[in-house]
Amino acid sequence: MTQALDFASNRRALARCITQIENGSPEMRGLVARLYAQAGRARIIGVTGAPGCGKSTLVATLARRLRSQPISAGLSYPQIAIIAVDPSSPFSGGAILGDRVRMRDLSGDAGIFIRSMASRGALGGLAGATADVVSVLDSAGFDVILIETVGAGQLEVDIARIAQTVIVVEAPGAGDEVQAVKAGILEIADIVVVNKADREGAAQTIAALQSALDLSRPERAPFGAHKHGLPARGQASARPHTLDKSDGRDVQWHIPIVKTVALTGEGVEAVLAAIHAHADYLRASGEGARRRARAVEQDVRARLADLLTRRALASISREQYDALITATIARAMHPDEAAEHLMNTSWGK
Amino acid sequence: MTQALDFASNRRALARCITQIENGSPEMRGLVARLYAQAGRARIIGVTGAPGCGKSTLVATLARRLRSQPISAGLSYPQIAIIAVDPSSPFSGGAILGDRVRMRDLSGDAGIFIRSMASRGALGGLAGATADVVSVLDSAGFDVILIETVGAGQLEVDIARIAQTVIVVEAPGAGDEVQAVKAGILEIADIVVVNKADREGAAQTIAALQSALDLSRPERAPFGAHKHGLPARGQASARPHTLDKSDGRDVQWHIPIVKTVALTGEGVEAVLAAIHAHADYLRASGEGARRRARAVEQDVRARLADLLTRRALASISREQYDALITATIARAMHPDEAAEHLMNTSWGK
Repeated sequence: MTQALDFASNRRALARCITQIENGSPEMRGLVARLYAQAGRARIIGVTGAPGCGKSTLVATLARRLRSQPISAGLSYPQIAIIAVDPSSPFSGGAILGDRVRMRDLSGDAGIFIRSMASRGALGGLAGATADVVSVLDSAGFDVILIETVGAGQLEVDIARIAQTVIVVEAPGAGDEVQAVKAGILEIADIVVVNKADREGAAQTIAALQSALDLSRPERAPFGAHKHGLPARGQASARPHTLDKSDGRDVQWHIPIVKTVALTGEGVEAVLAAIHAHADYLRASGEGARRRARAVEQDVRARLADLLTRRALASISREQYDALITATIARAMHPDEAAEHLMNTSWGK
Repeated sequence: MTQALDFASNRRALARCITQIENGSPEMRGLVARLYAQAGRARIIGVTGAPGCGKSTLVATLARRLRSQPISAGLSYPQIAIIAVDPSSPFSGGAILGDRVRMRDLSGDAGIFIRSMASRGALGGLAGATADVVSVLDSAGFDVILIETVGAGQLEVDIARIAQTVIVVEAPGAGDEVQAVKAGILEIADIVVVNKADREGAAQTIAALQSALDLSRPERAPFGAHKHGLPARGQASARPHTLDKSDGRDVQWHIPIVKTVALTGEGVEAVLAAIHAHADYLRASGEGARRRARAVEQDVRARLADLLTRRALASISREQYDALITATIARAMHPDEAAEHLMNTSWGK
């Protein structure tokens, strides 16, 4: 676990490195690229769900449990990193601290590293910065990396792509409201957790989730197939699979619904068991490698889009740029036409 | 209200046009550009909030109220369009219909056009497609366009940029949970609505929202200042304003918190009054024009990024591309390095 910068023992250096990644600091790029080559060992788990469902508590409980079980060899306890990604950050630069407060009791454990992320000017946006932070943590020797995301949307999709296993958390709602279904985040789930399962309405929520899972799709949708509006090159065609039968060796994944009360720890062992089972599935089916390939491809494309845009804008004069924007504001030109002019003026310069 | 394609009387043509915009169909681009030149008259209102807060019901109630009030000249009732944007669409291509079902009672009114949007291959992504649909509806003579978004994240920010006025809806939560605050969407609010205000906990929710508003910032954060990691050129510097005093003419905007019970219509008049007051503010302060300028600039940049990426990928051989992606998957190369290679190989070709 001795690494280039000995991050495991030097948390301050690690925190500084992450901040520079967030800021898109160009000095870090060499180091990040070196550390990327050393990564690939950590187990990366995404935990997402609507605000108030108890994600942070579940993450904290999972981290504590994982810390109490020695790594297979029995030599040591795993090092855990928690990354909390807050979509409000494009505006605030910071984050509402509610969730972080509840995680405070973990911070006394030297084997747990907690960090919240804010989007800044990193290449590839927040998802790119998160991917870089994950590989830094991975290369620094963290065994498990838990990524917590708030809300639903493209960001969750992009971050889910970084994780090997995505847990979608739902809490029993008022009546027929199943937030994970309404917000569309069930689409990215490998494991569904119904937290606060001691509350009224838990059975209905589970039934609603089960029927949504049964209806929605035969397998987890392939990630990012059309992110840039382009068919992904070299992507394996989606292989439909049967949920109800397994012939010979079982390499199918049946998305489990696990009931928990994260505050008391009830059901958390079952979540861990599902995480382990999903790791086996990813390996046995080859889906783990396919997912990583898709994630890398989309990451490269997002960074390419950023690089190209920076280069194009840098090679256009301020006057030209302002004239095009002004004409578009005045509706003398459609945004597509302005974008085309900008491309044609800058391309190859 | 007679337009190029007479969309107002031909809903089927309008629906087909929107589908083609969603699909990124190149044949539509000429028409969309022509209609863009004719747009600029409609009032565009964004309504966002966490799942289950009652946004759709509020949108339906607002639409019904607006339909009952003649336009200022007294000549006719306004034509209303509702666009429901569902972030789950990148995967599903469709949408969970819960919200749409509740809007069904509106569909008998020929003055209301309802459409849900799914992201496909349009330039500039879902936000770009939504902007194009809005200008098509605008040029077709719709007086008010209501955009409903589910969830929180970059998508909401991008869509909020299209709207002139953003309403963030919150429902009383369990205890201290204020979802709009936790999900960060308060940052984009011009008007805050506490819906289901007859429920327990409404007073606490209002108090929590009020203190979040008081604390968070002196004015609405400028949109998209760093979307591409670049400082926005020519952007007006953020002018802090004082919340508590107005000297001379009041061109300040104090974000109001309005209580509603959308199901019964309670408080909806107050929401409309706030919408009208915000329109006055946008005009009197010049903020409306500044916002539109920022929105156009960001829209152009998003489309430029897409165009550049398409062009770059089209000018690279399949073998080169696959080799770079494979090397990155194998960690022989960092995604930034692969992106740089792709840019340098394609730039100017």
